[in-house]
Amino acid sequence: MVVRRGEKKDLVAVLDLIRELANYEKEPYQVTNTVERMEREGFGETPVFGFLVAEISGRIVGTAIYYYRYSTWKGKRLYLEDIVITESERGKGIGTKLFERTEQIARDTDCTGMMWQVLDWNEPAINFYKKYKTRFDEGWINCHLDF
Amino acid sequence: MVVRRGEKKDLVAVLDLIRELANYEKEPYQVTNTVERMEREGFGETPVFGFLVAEISGRIVGTAIYYYRYSTWKGKRLYLEDIVITESERGKGIGTKLFERTEQIARDTDCTGMMWQVLDWNEPAINFYKKYKTRFDEGWINCHLDF
Repeated sequence: MVVRRGEKKDLVAVLDLIRELANYEKEPYQVTNTVERMEREGFGETPVFGFLVAEISGRIVGTAIYYYRYSTWKGKRLYLEDIVITESERGKGIGTKLFERTEQIARDTDCTGMMWQVLDWNEPAINFYKKYKTRFDEGWINCHLDF
Repeated sequence: MVVRRGEKKDLVAVLDLIRELANYEKEPYQVTNTVERMEREGFGETPVFGFLVAEISGRIVGTAIYYYRYSTWKGKRLYLEDIVITESERGKGIGTKLFERTEQIARDTDCTGMMWQVLDWNEPAINFYKKYKTRFDEGWINCHLDF
């Protein structure tokens, strides 16, 4: 298993993983993103996000997608938007490798920390994050305005 | 009252407003950010955030701080990190002006929408956001790893 930086050619597989996660989170119809949009927004002069992929024998089985946020309290933070491992490959330590490599990117790019969100019913994920020195911060509602 | 793009010289007043909000959110000791860090991270070739200020007779009375996030489901989104009006100037429509100007920036920069968070006990803010077509999404826990 290899963890490496994602490239344009990986985006079809990455978007499949994003759809797999949306299914798991019970919101399959929310994914309106496209490979073309991800190509435009993830590459070029000012990429809005970066991503890692986990590959086994040439097949993409996992991804971690991140970007930088700005905490007015703490300064620059890496935000881990999604970490997805395809169902058949879970429990093999791939998530750990993706998570720790992402943390390394945050440390290498002058971040004061990293952040992410977890659904309050997603116990396997919460237990995974407890293995790190994660600070859990409850009581927030996400608000969206869709154009 | 003027709403305009923030400049380096505004950062002392803006950090004061950030501290005022942290007090209101009952977390005054969490603010470790500094004017120097904000200068470095908000300006230059690759700014991590942008901000607006509201000014009355040369005094900064409000700010909106934003940056771009990447929704794997929806694509590029503007994230409104903070909107703060100093206590003595609340209820005068300054928040509305800052919010709507931020929305305009999101529309002008090819975003598919904008996002923010609100504390579940902050009723005045929730009521304010209900005036827009806000979609409220509950059940998320914020996770932090501080370096």
